[in-house]
Amino acid sequence: MKIESVDFFYLAMPEITTEADGSQDALLVRVAAGGYVGWGECEASPLVSIAAFVCPMSHGVCRPVRASVLGRELDSPRDIARIAADVEYNSMDLLQAAHTFSGVEMALWDLLGKAKSEPVWKLLGYTGSHKKIPYASQLFGDTPQDTLRRAEKARANGFKAVKFGWGPIGRAGAAADADQFFAAREGLRSDGILLVDVGQIWGEDVDAAADRLPSLEAAGAVWLEEPFHASALNAYGTLARRSARVKLAGGEGAHNVFMARHLIDHGGVGFVQIDCGRIGGIWPAKKVADYAAARNVTFVNHTFTSHLALSASLQPFAGLADHTICEFPFAPKPVAEELVSTPLQRDENGAVAAPEAPGLGIEISPEAVRKYLVDVEIRVAGQTLYSNPSVDAHPVSEV
Amino acid sequence: MKIESVDFFYLAMPEITTEADGSQDALLVRVAAGGYVGWGECEASPLVSIAAFVCPMSHGVCRPVRASVLGRELDSPRDIARIAADVEYNSMDLLQAAHTFSGVEMALWDLLGKAKSEPVWKLLGYTGSHKKIPYASQLFGDTPQDTLRRAEKARANGFKAVKFGWGPIGRAGAAADADQFFAAREGLRSDGILLVDVGQIWGEDVDAAADRLPSLEAAGAVWLEEPFHASALNAYGTLARRSARVKLAGGEGAHNVFMARHLIDHGGVGFVQIDCGRIGGIWPAKKVADYAAARNVTFVNHTFTSHLALSASLQPFAGLADHTICEFPFAPKPVAEELVSTPLQRDENGAVAAPEAPGLGIEISPEAVRKYLVDVEIRVAGQTLYSNPSVDAHPVSEV
Repeated sequence: MKIESVDFFYLAMPEITTEADGSQDALLVRVAAGGYVGWGECEASPLVSIAAFVCPMSHGVCRPVRASVLGRELDSPRDIARIAADVEYNSMDLLQAAHTFSGVEMALWDLLGKAKSEPVWKLLGYTGSHKKIPYASQLFGDTPQDTLRRAEKARANGFKAVKFGWGPIGRAGAAADADQFFAAREGLRSDGILLVDVGQIWGEDVDAAADRLPSLEAAGAVWLEEPFHASALNAYGTLARRSARVKLAGGEGAHNVFMARHLIDHGGVGFVQIDCGRIGGIWPAKKVADYAAARNVTFVNHTFTSHLALSASLQPFAGLADHTICEFPFAPKPVAEELVSTPLQRDENGAVAAPEAPGLGIEISPEAVRKYLVDVEIRVAGQTLYSNPSVDAHPVSEV
Repeated sequence: MKIESVDFFYLAMPEITTEADGSQDALLVRVAAGGYVGWGECEASPLVSIAAFVCPMSHGVCRPVRASVLGRELDSPRDIARIAADVEYNSMDLLQAAHTFSGVEMALWDLLGKAKSEPVWKLLGYTGSHKKIPYASQLFGDTPQDTLRRAEKARANGFKAVKFGWGPIGRAGAAADADQFFAAREGLRSDGILLVDVGQIWGEDVDAAADRLPSLEAAGAVWLEEPFHASALNAYGTLARRSARVKLAGGEGAHNVFMARHLIDHGGVGFVQIDCGRIGGIWPAKKVADYAAARNVTFVNHTFTSHLALSASLQPFAGLADHTICEFPFAPKPVAEELVSTPLQRDENGAVAAPEAPGLGIEISPEAVRKYLVDVEIRVAGQTLYSNPSVDAHPVSEV
């Protein structure tokens, strides 16, 4: 098959707020080849990622992502690897390229799986799709009372594991943070799995993070996620050596395999969290999963948006039976929810797994695409480089 | 002063080729505040960096760069640091943000220097601007004969140091590469300084790079630059331990201070090369210079474009007397050359220094801006987020 077209759909809620909720917009990618269609999703900043696909070339290693994708052969996983290597080299100086290609790469796997009638995890070499315990991912409440209620609600919704993130943590001192951690524990009851995400709030201030370790440990938190800047390896490594019980988690900011490996090798994380919509897609995430598994580090997906992104993010560790926890968007915005007409279903124990259906096993709702589509036009030197594609057809781009 | 406007000018040659020559286009930034105007330059991919400045917010930590810049106070270096910290946090999930802000940050320093009648290097805390030996930065020839002629020409132009890069290296075996290295040495004569840049050609293949070490050493190369992917720390570290004489150089891909520090701490580089147009501007580059100087690693600028970028890139190590070598665009394209009406002059010994004039000490040519300006329009949801600003006025944006 030859890649005939790659189309981007910028979807967004009518109003975007400053809360740290990444489900407020989405960049959906549709790839067409050989009569098949595949879907993927980039994370984040739709306009910028579209620009990185269509921009004029700056020089030989600052080419638009499209230059390495359109017209290429797609018959095997090897072809996806070749395209990915070309994007990495030809767009070396185009920083946004990794985010843009991430959604394209997912769509290539989805399409290839459909063409071969195989789920993506099988194409990746796994023999089975193991069930994962989803943790409900949500923000801390403004007050400990809020947080307690959110924890109770998540338990009532069948989630045994809950991750609280961002909100007031780190802004009012260690004692106030401890109140939040204990409220979360109370709401989850003694057998709930508590995970804490602080969204890089301490930059590279190891002491500020270490001040929270006693209360995190007392509240029985399994991990402390992103205490520092995504690249602050030394701070991660130092804190990891100071924490007896609470493991560090990080990696969502990795935009290549190396960055994730460094967090394992030099940052001492116990959990490496990969967003397939940022790291370059599914295969680089699989490489991180292999690397983590060989070093007794647990792979976890990072997913805060739609079930298309969720299915993609489950594939890289679908076959790892011992890596049992997965992030699950608990309260996404309507755009993320409505985008997929066949969401993943939790079983009677609340578990989920990467689908058995071909590709990513996800159907996109054309109505939702039409409803949330943002009108975009990019013109350069008198030429329209981007205007909204039609969701009804899969027009064949000139290659 | 309050930052009133930030304007981007996308300039380009009429035709862009696939050669690895980053001077074929430019993204010029103009900032206005308090009756002063400052200029900066982003590297690279103008359309994508513009998009990262004007894009709609995706969520609280995926805001456009403009959200952290427009309307802010600018009276001291501290203000620039505050703005930079806000960009880093508020645009955490916007990968391109570092490249976009780099040019803005330069312009903030230029403006502040003009307002205070001080060169930027003084505002950075240096007491003098030391002369640097510029190396002519150019591509390897297609044949060793070509390379020899280019080396002779650079010497005839008064360059004692020359860096050859990219071209055929790594594509035809170690023996062919050795011919190139020896041709460069012959053209430079025995007392010339030879630097070699291979543009990430070996990915993370340490053995392929190590195969070239004997001929590089025999040709008297001072450094081997970017043998690997910008993030391949382990490969860098392993090769550094295997190389007795030839030091490794790298860092141009760093888009934050951490990445540059990791190349020093884990990659074992002897020269750390920072592009102020990518790492977030002048101040992060100064932090890298401080870090390098304390560890016996030599700081070098990475500059392949205009003398605006060159002046900016000299500031972070202007006061470091022992860090004597600097990259100097030897054969930039006309757009990069004409953009600046007051290029830096080499003295009778061929040396250059960061200017003594206020700010970056560089005048922009309005004629060149008009001549090479690329027409761009970005429309989202019925609103024009970007259209070309006028080079004649400094319109005050609504803040």
